[in-house]
Amino acid sequence: MSLTDAVPDDTGNAAGTGEGPLLARLPVRRSSSAGWHDLDDLVAVEEPLELRVQLPNGGSEALSVTMRTPGHDLLLVRGWLHAEGLSFAVDVLWQQPDLPNVVWLRGDVQALLGARRAQATSSACGICGSGSVERLMLRVPEPVWTAPPLAPALISSLPGRLREAQPAFEASGGLHAAGLFTPAGTLLAAFEDVGRHNAVDKLVGAAVEAGELPLGDRMLVTSSRAGFEIVQKALLAGVAVVVTVGAPSSLAVLTAASLGLTLVGFARQGRFNVYAGAERLLP
Amino acid sequence: MSLTDAVPDDTGNAAGTGEGPLLARLPVRRSSSAGWHDLDDLVAVEEPLELRVQLPNGGSEALSVTMRTPGHDLLLVRGWLHAEGLSFAVDVLWQQPDLPNVVWLRGDVQALLGARRAQATSSACGICGSGSVERLMLRVPEPVWTAPPLAPALISSLPGRLREAQPAFEASGGLHAAGLFTPAGTLLAAFEDVGRHNAVDKLVGAAVEAGELPLGDRMLVTSSRAGFEIVQKALLAGVAVVVTVGAPSSLAVLTAASLGLTLVGFARQGRFNVYAGAERLLP
Repeated sequence: MSLTDAVPDDTGNAAGTGEGPLLARLPVRRSSSAGWHDLDDLVAVEEPLELRVQLPNGGSEALSVTMRTPGHDLLLVRGWLHAEGLSFAVDVLWQQPDLPNVVWLRGDVQALLGARRAQATSSACGICGSGSVERLMLRVPEPVWTAPPLAPALISSLPGRLREAQPAFEASGGLHAAGLFTPAGTLLAAFEDVGRHNAVDKLVGAAVEAGELPLGDRMLVTSSRAGFEIVQKALLAGVAVVVTVGAPSSLAVLTAASLGLTLVGFARQGRFNVYAGAERLLP
Repeated sequence: MSLTDAVPDDTGNAAGTGEGPLLARLPVRRSSSAGWHDLDDLVAVEEPLELRVQLPNGGSEALSVTMRTPGHDLLLVRGWLHAEGLSFAVDVLWQQPDLPNVVWLRGDVQALLGARRAQATSSACGICGSGSVERLMLRVPEPVWTAPPLAPALISSLPGRLREAQPAFEASGGLHAAGLFTPAGTLLAAFEDVGRHNAVDKLVGAAVEAGELPLGDRMLVTSSRAGFEIVQKALLAGVAVVVTVGAPSSLAVLTAASLGLTLVGFARQGRFNVYAGAERLLP
């Protein structure tokens, strides 16, 4: 049974339709060369989201809390569960209309609460970054890319294409976007969030939902920097090419190079840097 | 006994002197209007840091793992423990020279491991952002500001002054900086990290170390956006004025306004926005 089939009809927040308010209008005092000026400004909405596990005795326990921009909460949780390797333990996932900041789930309570403890301590070995990479290599196969090599002009156009689909960022400057593109540069889906990891989780959650994993022959484009966790989430979803507007970290580059991911940073109109996997680009 | 006194002499990494390698030099292929070009590029170093609690039986357990830029690890941990309300439970904190990505601590094992579970679930109520603000109000007093009101020209100059103290960011574009300033605009301390929360933790950890909390009459300046957690860390350290280069979130603004913090966003030469606490600025 897929997670999609398992979503109850009475949740009031069907996955994929959960548009929330991305922006809030707040009063602000602006100082500039023209002096002080009172105006209203748009800021990105940030609210806590709690994930609660239903217990057999009728009670519930919190599994995690994350700060996120409301909207697409079920997709966010699906994507997060996928990255944590917990999708297998979840039977049902739902929201109640009167508690918009809580997602409930039912499933393998032992596995889920056991993971809560592991969460704090398992994201890395604590000894070295290469240990983190090695553990990831045990979990994911090399991503598959069967499409022809990509033209540089296409790569450098992707951030602009993503920005066009991200009106809330333009308005607030406070949201990150993650978009999924075909090799031809067609945008398939895009999500925004105050957290860059959340934006990617929502995107992967939507793919999980649609039964589209692994995402071979797909490019993940983000408005953010690329740290280890962004690259890890991409690889766990089967993505072969990651393009970011910001800088990569050393561990992101090491991970991409070790697992066969193409990693592009500082992408903007007319230029970009390739940190790993240059063989997927036209010379 | 202060934490500083408790650091063993044989750690090989005295707090405050733990300069680590912020940048790594990596080969990169650059695409631009001039075509392809192979060069070496500087990227921000990202490595996992594991915090391990020594048990009475001689064993140890992991308390948390975070991705961070090496250097000042003990300060990072001190600042993080302060924000988590766990400083009271720590007797000794140290590193071993042969395990640079591990920080060990000895103290109240019950409290520390109990907090590990709470970590995943306590950062917010899960019901609403205002609940998060209310819980924070129970923990921290209103910050104290006795200095005269601040000149707008001083505020807009702060990001530039911080950038001068942040050579690694200039080189890589991948590091965040956090700096502590006097009301006269003098930079007292600055730290860099791939994680914006880590940079603030290092700064607060250094103040804990020096016995300088609460940080009344101090300005916290960050190169990043201001989310709820940045504002929360500032308030827990007693800071009265936060100036960020990026955008604030809705919950950051609500928190600042509720707890009496001055919150400035989009600060750059010649302009900035005040989202809360404008009374600390000259009209």
